[in-house]
Amino acid sequence: MLTISEPRQMQRWSARERGQGRRIAFVPTMGFLHEGHLELMREGKRRAEALVVSIYVNPTQFNQAEDLAKYPRDLAGDLAKCASVGCDVVYTPSDREMYPPGYRTYVNVEGLTAGLCGASRPGHFRGVATIVTKLFNAVQPDVALFGQKDFQQLAVLARMTRDLDLPVKIVGCPTVREPDGLAMSSRNARLSPAARLQAPCLYRALTHVCESARAGERDGTKLIAEARRIIEAAGPCRVDYLELVDAEELTPVAFLGDRPAQLALAVWIGEVRLIDNLGVWEGKR
Amino acid sequence: MLTISEPRQMQRWSARERGQGRRIAFVPTMGFLHEGHLELMREGKRRAEALVVSIYVNPTQFNQAEDLAKYPRDLAGDLAKCASVGCDVVYTPSDREMYPPGYRTYVNVEGLTAGLCGASRPGHFRGVATIVTKLFNAVQPDVALFGQKDFQQLAVLARMTRDLDLPVKIVGCPTVREPDGLAMSSRNARLSPAARLQAPCLYRALTHVCESARAGERDGTKLIAEARRIIEAAGPCRVDYLELVDAEELTPVAFLGDRPAQLALAVWIGEVRLIDNLGVWEGKR
Repeated sequence: MLTISEPRQMQRWSARERGQGRRIAFVPTMGFLHEGHLELMREGKRRAEALVVSIYVNPTQFNQAEDLAKYPRDLAGDLAKCASVGCDVVYTPSDREMYPPGYRTYVNVEGLTAGLCGASRPGHFRGVATIVTKLFNAVQPDVALFGQKDFQQLAVLARMTRDLDLPVKIVGCPTVREPDGLAMSSRNARLSPAARLQAPCLYRALTHVCESARAGERDGTKLIAEARRIIEAAGPCRVDYLELVDAEELTPVAFLGDRPAQLALAVWIGEVRLIDNLGVWEGKR
Repeated sequence: MLTISEPRQMQRWSARERGQGRRIAFVPTMGFLHEGHLELMREGKRRAEALVVSIYVNPTQFNQAEDLAKYPRDLAGDLAKCASVGCDVVYTPSDREMYPPGYRTYVNVEGLTAGLCGASRPGHFRGVATIVTKLFNAVQPDVALFGQKDFQQLAVLARMTRDLDLPVKIVGCPTVREPDGLAMSSRNARLSPAARLQAPCLYRALTHVCESARAGERDGTKLIAEARRIIEAAGPCRVDYLELVDAEELTPVAFLGDRPAQLALAVWIGEVRLIDNLGVWEGKR
């Protein structure tokens, strides 16, 4: 397994691979890898001959310096995990290479980034779209894999890839969960024992709404209220957002109808902000 | 010579070329080709084995619908000119392919786009940066050639290419001029006979400032005033901007000093807005 930290060197490696007819799968990460990331990598291995994983904690997608500073890191552990699934290259660019002095170019996906996580984290998706464009340009992948846990991110990046004619296939993979339903996330490591016990309430709320919708409840306001009750009953927390949205357009859904709907949430439990989502309605076909 | 109008097809052609070890030179244009474009193409032929020219009048870089509607077009003539210099592919995407319904992704180069043409044409460089990113992603060139006449555009695109790690070498080529000094431009076709006679005053003003600087004048305000006198003496016109700027940062230069300086201008003569520029000072080395 190679470690590459310079964009030009990454491009040369990829050009050589592609010149030999090998397709490249790419999993961009911010490190502190968990089973969710490893599942993306395994899926990448199934879809292409070569696998590149990037590990880069991207400063432009953090809107709070404190959150950036607290983001957990473990490069040695991450490299071992990448090797264990047969990764070919780990791309680990430095801040200096990614954002050199005078840096001033940003990619914006307008509209899709205004609500949900975009509302409480201004600039976040501009940072995500920009770094993913840069990583794609360095890695030149045929296919890139993202977790459905970051549902809005996946929608933004799918739209960006289509809009900018990037020659990359975007694949969203199912959220990997702990046995009690908590979505895997690098941030889970920062939960206190009490918060960790409380956190599965998010998935319980999502699955409850799914069942409620199946049982005939179509009213978005009522479904959201049910989810909120379950979350707030589990212990002290602060709901950042809890929304029923169109699965593609991310616009609010007042009543379940023809189109698929997603329940998406972000909740602070202790000092950690957790996000999760579930497709609660497939739409009428 | 092939004509390709679909991004995926363009990507497939380029992938095949590059798979055979052929480098690709790219000249993006809005058509109505003149000798300036042909010079870019010839330079492209010298730098790579294959030459792609795009012809696309990009709506998102026009801030006035009227200017877009009036932009001259001549596809048949353009194709003949491309063939005459040995172009391999003419890429002619449609508006529907470039900006399909729901399109919402834009590339912004912050700062560099605020002054000069950016000030009088809001959104112009956002449109330019976005379409060039899209064209690069479709054509996958090794080298792309741009005229120095569009001096701010060249600075913006060079910065964007570096910032986004696009694997493309950006080459700026000298402005090609009519015998009387008027910079070649597709817009020249819209000048009335009287305006055409008046228009060379722009280049006269630029070369005058260059000589004045060489003769010892360092004061930006005085140099600009000299240029303005020459332009206004030539006939009725409206100066949009006339600025002495740092050749890389595009920031105003009060006195000629260590760094290279460029005199840049945009002037309305009759109903046509003409731009031009000249490196009037090389800086002290």
